[in-house]
Amino acid sequence: MTTQPADAAQTSALPAVRASESHGLPGLLVVFEGGEGVGKSTQIARLVAHLERTRPGVQVVQSREPGGTAAAEALRRIALDPEFDGLAPRAEALVFAAARSDHVARVIRPALAAGAVVVLDRYIDSSVVYQGLARGLGAADVEALSMWATEGLAPDLVFMLDLDPGTGLGRVARPDRMESAGLEFHNRVRQGFLERAAAEPARYRVIDASATIDEVAANIAAHMDSVLDA
Amino acid sequence: MTTQPADAAQTSALPAVRASESHGLPGLLVVFEGGEGVGKSTQIARLVAHLERTRPGVQVVQSREPGGTAAAEALRRIALDPEFDGLAPRAEALVFAAARSDHVARVIRPALAAGAVVVLDRYIDSSVVYQGLARGLGAADVEALSMWATEGLAPDLVFMLDLDPGTGLGRVARPDRMESAGLEFHNRVRQGFLERAAAEPARYRVIDASATIDEVAANIAAHMDSVLDA
Repeated sequence: MTTQPADAAQTSALPAVRASESHGLPGLLVVFEGGEGVGKSTQIARLVAHLERTRPGVQVVQSREPGGTAAAEALRRIALDPEFDGLAPRAEALVFAAARSDHVARVIRPALAAGAVVVLDRYIDSSVVYQGLARGLGAADVEALSMWATEGLAPDLVFMLDLDPGTGLGRVARPDRMESAGLEFHNRVRQGFLERAAAEPARYRVIDASATIDEVAANIAAHMDSVLDA
Repeated sequence: MTTQPADAAQTSALPAVRASESHGLPGLLVVFEGGEGVGKSTQIARLVAHLERTRPGVQVVQSREPGGTAAAEALRRIALDPEFDGLAPRAEALVFAAARSDHVARVIRPALAAGAVVVLDRYIDSSVVYQGLARGLGAADVEALSMWATEGLAPDLVFMLDLDPGTGLGRVARPDRMESAGLEFHNRVRQGFLERAAAEPARYRVIDASATIDEVAANIAAHMDSVLDA
């Protein structure tokens, strides 16, 4: 058998792809991002309640990732099923991208086309920060994958809930694998989120999540109102 | 609510990525490609028998796509399950890329590292030609996805079984959805395969599949031997 020359084993990478500036649809895509224990679920519930109370004519769609369609839920189970433990890291990233693709095409874009405010718990930033860091796949590649999967659907607004990881992890009652990964890891995650926010200040709103729940909710509601009334 | 400017809705694409010239591993990745009814299964069985008869010291690993690992089979079922009918086209492409990624990382690369001859029924060319054409996702994007999924694992040798689609489809007893897609579609598929073969003559071997099974098998075996003895 012939032996292949070892020097030619170059790998390939997906070059970075810029997000579209806007999806061009009448709705608004609002994403909550941030580390563990920063209070995303609580604040999403508060924002949805605020919108429903103050803007009864606006349709609000709440969803979370990975998930949102039957196929996306099935893909989520494959990614998390212990039977498939050891799923190759790139395969895992592709499974999450596939779930996101279906979610966007069949739920999020139709809702935006109908003029809804879509409020998402985690989106592309989480993939980039967690998989880029945790799995070492590279932030640019993971982002390019999500951009292709979603046909470039970028959020209109990202609330980046920021909190010292030592405080955030203290709020988590029963840590899962990601939450148990150590303070150094979570500091890198926080740094990753903050760098993404700093690069696009018009799209990202960093929220100090160390304040009280009411204070954080008021801060988010005020910014949301200013965007909707602009 | 603010309305987004419609002109900014640019989508993103994955730029084309060149395959690695070689994987640098001691084994050999041999792929069979071609349209419906060209005789891939029969010829793969003949080649494997030929290798096992003439080269008892060489490990031969036979596999097919999509599939090859438990997770890849589960992903295959999601792509084909009628429950998920209407899976978004990009999501479907990502599911197939995820299955390929796991297959390559956990089965094909380890086999190549151990010096095996890996014989595959369909690989990246099929995705590019069928999904690029059938789903209209674009050949370059589908190829870039597979290149990322496999860390650039290109075949060492592709046997491209070529046959007039009118003849090939006549050989298929019970056509499935793809096989029923019409002669014009299958002519485009054939053209797509031939163009890929023409672009890289060192890697692709176009085989006239209109000859008898014995003649085709002898043609393939002779070329395989010349590669292994080079």
